[in-house]
Amino acid sequence: MTSQKKTTVPRKIRIEANLLDKQLRAIFSAWGMPEDIIGPTVYTMVETDLRGIDSHGIGMIMRYEEYLQKGLLNIRPNIKTLKETPAVAQITGDAGLGHAPSVKAIEMACDKAEQLGVGIVSVTHSMHHGAVGAYALRAARRGMIGFGCTAAWAHCIPPTRSKDAMFATNPIAFAAPAGKNRHFVMDFATSTVAVGKISIAWFNDRPLPPGWVIDAEGQSVTDPAIAHPLSTRERQGGLTPLGGTEDMSSHKGYGLAAMVEILSTILSGAVYGPALIRRNPEATNTMSGGHFFMALKPEFFREPGDFQNDLDEMIDALHAATPIDPQKPVLVHGDNEWAHFDDRKKNGIPVPLKLLGLIKGVADRAGADFLLGEVSENSHSLWGAH
Amino acid sequence: MTSQKKTTVPRKIRIEANLLDKQLRAIFSAWGMPEDIIGPTVYTMVETDLRGIDSHGIGMIMRYEEYLQKGLLNIRPNIKTLKETPAVAQITGDAGLGHAPSVKAIEMACDKAEQLGVGIVSVTHSMHHGAVGAYALRAARRGMIGFGCTAAWAHCIPPTRSKDAMFATNPIAFAAPAGKNRHFVMDFATSTVAVGKISIAWFNDRPLPPGWVIDAEGQSVTDPAIAHPLSTRERQGGLTPLGGTEDMSSHKGYGLAAMVEILSTILSGAVYGPALIRRNPEATNTMSGGHFFMALKPEFFREPGDFQNDLDEMIDALHAATPIDPQKPVLVHGDNEWAHFDDRKKNGIPVPLKLLGLIKGVADRAGADFLLGEVSENSHSLWGAH
Repeated sequence: MTSQKKTTVPRKIRIEANLLDKQLRAIFSAWGMPEDIIGPTVYTMVETDLRGIDSHGIGMIMRYEEYLQKGLLNIRPNIKTLKETPAVAQITGDAGLGHAPSVKAIEMACDKAEQLGVGIVSVTHSMHHGAVGAYALRAARRGMIGFGCTAAWAHCIPPTRSKDAMFATNPIAFAAPAGKNRHFVMDFATSTVAVGKISIAWFNDRPLPPGWVIDAEGQSVTDPAIAHPLSTRERQGGLTPLGGTEDMSSHKGYGLAAMVEILSTILSGAVYGPALIRRNPEATNTMSGGHFFMALKPEFFREPGDFQNDLDEMIDALHAATPIDPQKPVLVHGDNEWAHFDDRKKNGIPVPLKLLGLIKGVADRAGADFLLGEVSENSHSLWGAH
Repeated sequence: MTSQKKTTVPRKIRIEANLLDKQLRAIFSAWGMPEDIIGPTVYTMVETDLRGIDSHGIGMIMRYEEYLQKGLLNIRPNIKTLKETPAVAQITGDAGLGHAPSVKAIEMACDKAEQLGVGIVSVTHSMHHGAVGAYALRAARRGMIGFGCTAAWAHCIPPTRSKDAMFATNPIAFAAPAGKNRHFVMDFATSTVAVGKISIAWFNDRPLPPGWVIDAEGQSVTDPAIAHPLSTRERQGGLTPLGGTEDMSSHKGYGLAAMVEILSTILSGAVYGPALIRRNPEATNTMSGGHFFMALKPEFFREPGDFQNDLDEMIDALHAATPIDPQKPVLVHGDNEWAHFDDRKKNGIPVPLKLLGLIKGVADRAGADFLLGEVSENSHSLWGAH
């Protein structure tokens, strides 16, 4: 392995967001996805990479292909409203990818908040929708507070004291519109770390910090080769809830995961997997996820501009806080993602050559053109070595 | 000190909730608080002790007396609505205790949710309101999901990488109505632990687990005598955000504290202290807190009964999860509080004799009768030794 690090072939190339957008459109179109579903799906996937969240953007296309091949993905979903009042709605994603119903949901929530100050939209029967922060951010761009969370039929997090994994990583996102500063945007799994961090350690053969993952006996696992299946496939052990240990208040991370489950799955009418598994241990439907979105318009609470000014003051105060290590300034949620966004919008999105090869495979199998430049002419040397 | 532990005098006595209610009413009444403010204030304080959250109930009366003596507490607040739509409202607590405006806020939120599916009420210019879970629980008792959070003008939590403490313990509460099970109720500080846990370790001279508190250099502090002022009075160091360390994702706890600040303080129009302190390092107004409350009525999303049934299934699945240690079953949020509630409603609330003495002092200074039984006749032997 180490000898390959000496190769002169770059391991990543920068590709313009617009070109990635075109490539994904070509693939989804070849799969038969209608234009009105493709639009929000591709926009969200590419924007997620622009914001530096590589684990949840364009790199998901192989997983989506797998869903399609297994017959789990409805490529022509009928996304429709099931219940509605002027302030809330429940919509169904009809077993399609979650991006399009999630964009619809947060925009509906914002429309309602324009009228009444708040809008809540719940999405049932939906699939993976990328990073939930993308939808909270849409609200902030409309001058509103955005909140979102999502739960899936999966088993990653064993509650405090439990051997059995009872929740997916159940992420929470919250965004708020600033004035002169960039919008506040936070988005994270309610486990101590997300699956992506275990995967990266596994790819790089790096031991994990104790406390990220436990085995079925509740013991901390630091070997990433053992930790990875625990955090993805096994039904016992897994990713610790935020807090890590009972002493360090892992019951709080567990509570947040349960809150996300209640809002995303139970309120929306999606399926809480572990309850079904109690009745039928062979149950394996991983496709019935739910999402929850809220938008709040500050002007229904404050005079125009006051919320944004006060948020700017908070952000400025946090940036001005004295760092413990002068080399590591205090960050505000969103700072990292905005830095990636500015860089990548200007200089392109860095795509690992291995991923480029995988995308080419997806395009080829779909019968779609591969549009990502030189790579196709030089495939062996570019990703054959990785 | 150890010799005193051998005393045969019981250190706590059980007092009926109704009698504590009467005692608090007598004190507040003597202070000149109007009946319509006394009602929700006393109800909430006593219920909080019934639920076992001793740090936030009747034991707060000495702190409230301190506020009163310092002229910070408006004893006859004009709690009124400043802005309102059918779905949201902003109300002011008018610098009174936070219980009455918080009860009003969550009940208004529920009334709105009865009509539209959701209600959001924000409270500005308010003070301490006990444990925020009390208000989320009120929504669950009305068959609704309740969410609440609160922020105060205080400095306990240094963000990840920061020496400076920039947030109060900024708690979050969430409750959901179950069917056959007791309601799901969670309520916790967004720091790894609340101040109360540091106080208890300090009272008992017990070292803290590493990671609860850091000093101004970012080093973990385990000596409770050093940790206690750091978590309450100092502006540098303090309670770590949930997660504890950067490796264990303390940025998530920090993000939650910031979210609570934005919802409770900035949305409501209360004051974010550290921003003011940047302009005026001598600023010390600790009284301008804010709260945020939401109620959601499940029947606007699901068919009647479906939400409660599915939540029961989740709670049952969690209770049935295999424990790591068979002696320590997996708990669901609310279990401990419901056990206290059942016990204390039947057998009375255990009140430490020392606290009883302190309440007697407050009653005496207020010119209110002391109603808590024998204690007054035998004061020296009962609490003189502690």
